[in-house]
Amino acid sequence: MTFRISIIGFGAVGQGVAKVLLCKRETLQNMGVDIQVVAIADSRSSLINSEGIDLEKALQAKKTNGRIGNERTMSDSALEAIRDLEHELMVEATPTNIKTGEPALTHILHALGSGKHVVTSNKGPFIHNHATLINTARDNDVMLRYEATVGGAMPIINLIQENLAGNTIHRIEGILNGTCNYILTRMADEGLDYHHVLLEAQELGIAETDPSYDVMGIDAASKLVILANTAYGNNVTFADVQITGITEITPETLELADKNGYTIRLVGEASKDLLTVAPKLVSKKHPLAIRGTLNIATIHTDLSKTITVSGVGAGSIETASAILSDIIHIYKKHKAH
Amino acid sequence: MTFRISIIGFGAVGQGVAKVLLCKRETLQNMGVDIQVVAIADSRSSLINSEGIDLEKALQAKKTNGRIGNERTMSDSALEAIRDLEHELMVEATPTNIKTGEPALTHILHALGSGKHVVTSNKGPFIHNHATLINTARDNDVMLRYEATVGGAMPIINLIQENLAGNTIHRIEGILNGTCNYILTRMADEGLDYHHVLLEAQELGIAETDPSYDVMGIDAASKLVILANTAYGNNVTFADVQITGITEITPETLELADKNGYTIRLVGEASKDLLTVAPKLVSKKHPLAIRGTLNIATIHTDLSKTITVSGVGAGSIETASAILSDIIHIYKKHKAH
Repeated sequence: MTFRISIIGFGAVGQGVAKVLLCKRETLQNMGVDIQVVAIADSRSSLINSEGIDLEKALQAKKTNGRIGNERTMSDSALEAIRDLEHELMVEATPTNIKTGEPALTHILHALGSGKHVVTSNKGPFIHNHATLINTARDNDVMLRYEATVGGAMPIINLIQENLAGNTIHRIEGILNGTCNYILTRMADEGLDYHHVLLEAQELGIAETDPSYDVMGIDAASKLVILANTAYGNNVTFADVQITGITEITPETLELADKNGYTIRLVGEASKDLLTVAPKLVSKKHPLAIRGTLNIATIHTDLSKTITVSGVGAGSIETASAILSDIIHIYKKHKAH
Repeated sequence: MTFRISIIGFGAVGQGVAKVLLCKRETLQNMGVDIQVVAIADSRSSLINSEGIDLEKALQAKKTNGRIGNERTMSDSALEAIRDLEHELMVEATPTNIKTGEPALTHILHALGSGKHVVTSNKGPFIHNHATLINTARDNDVMLRYEATVGGAMPIINLIQENLAGNTIHRIEGILNGTCNYILTRMADEGLDYHHVLLEAQELGIAETDPSYDVMGIDAASKLVILANTAYGNNVTFADVQITGITEITPETLELADKNGYTIRLVGEASKDLLTVAPKLVSKKHPLAIRGTLNIATIHTDLSKTITVSGVGAGSIETASAILSDIIHIYKKHKAH
């Protein structure tokens, strides 16, 4: 069975997916997984080949020309053509839009509505209307997976859905933003102030030019919403999270914490009734006192007690790895069906 | 669809499964998972009811009489009767036999051979002939799952099989035995010697009366074999592991390590070519410097980079939770099939 997929969004993540499919071609063949990319769209252009796109050429074209095919904007006929194209699965890898979830929300609902499975790394649609997405997938008898939306390669969505099936989840705590964690780790280690370390992080490419999305706690809050909806199915949205960022933390506060055996971390916490993202004192011996750009989450349950997972929270290949695992999961289920 | 299951072995784990099925009856109903236990066997007796066993009564009988039904030994007709009984899934929860893998090996092969899915917590069969088990399941078109064999509720088998699908696993390192980790943590914290802490652990029920299985590294080595076979499919056995236990560790060694920012942990390490269990120096800042009875494992991969998971490594309810997640996984796949 050949599984035809489209990749919508061809920035870091979309290209990561193409690279991973290229370098894992043999591995996938040995696993009996036969995947063919039949369409790629970026914000300005698109490429369709029902016989299978040459991914190496597509990556090269993107690198050379900044786009992959004919000049078009993504909302127009190019995307329609992809929607009308016969294929089994769409990878939605456009950048997250916190405010509206668009254009990913429309892409995903259209794909599900036309009977296509969807795998995505895009947080936007899930923080606005998780339930609509889940219900649309169910009503159309297709699968929607989103492991890559939270913490890159950190395996947490599948953990909640599979390993903790049947468990009651009391609470989830996590360090869900690597940029903030890097800044807090460096500030504590070196006694440096926030602005100094932020500049350093920007130079290293760990923080964006406009870092507000990370340092204000917005990114962590988005991931927390997705975790809460996955664990509790209660359709919370971004507006339900109480958020405090890390911009007010001083080296003096960190030093005082350190003297008492603590450090400060930007902790996201979700229970059935409460969603918060805020700097918190964490014992230096506690797993959440994780260092650097790593992400970590601890899940407190009734049967399994406490489970902790950590991993690289970002990166195009790490995120693509989470997308690949979702594609393989769907491939196998689709095949068995 | 009603899923009929048998529970073979009714000690701590088997009873844990019965307790979990009882207390999660409503949760499972809401999930659309309909499970009925039609047979239970312990080492001396068995109980069969094709209409569904009253689990509360069975647990009570076990508690009161030390057995669940008519006096019989497990290898005889009672087990045959269960094998002949029509049902979809067998839970194998007898105690691990490191030397031969029996009687679990025979139970599992018979169940798979007669077209039943199997979920097990028993390490024995997997450290002797992993490949035969996997192939028998495949040849009979049934599923065999064993999340509970490694680290209780620590979610690692499914992680390797699902989340890391497509990844190349370079190396796995883990703290796979809670008893050893408790002893080493206490020795380092209090400057106490091995024998003193062992006694304390025995009084607390953390170490067995005969602790050799744990402190000699045998238990950790068994789990390592299962992880290696799951990651590499190379059918290694217990005999392939180089094992050193923790009995020679002194408080002086731990103190010296501590002064240099390290501690000592019993680390299991698996790569494609090498399997070792031995005490190793671990930086106190490293995740593997985990404290107390917890289990932890770090997986180094090409795409996802480094993923770490930790959880409670033992306990009947924690182990039963892993078994339940495997049962639900199979139930859903079986239903979709």
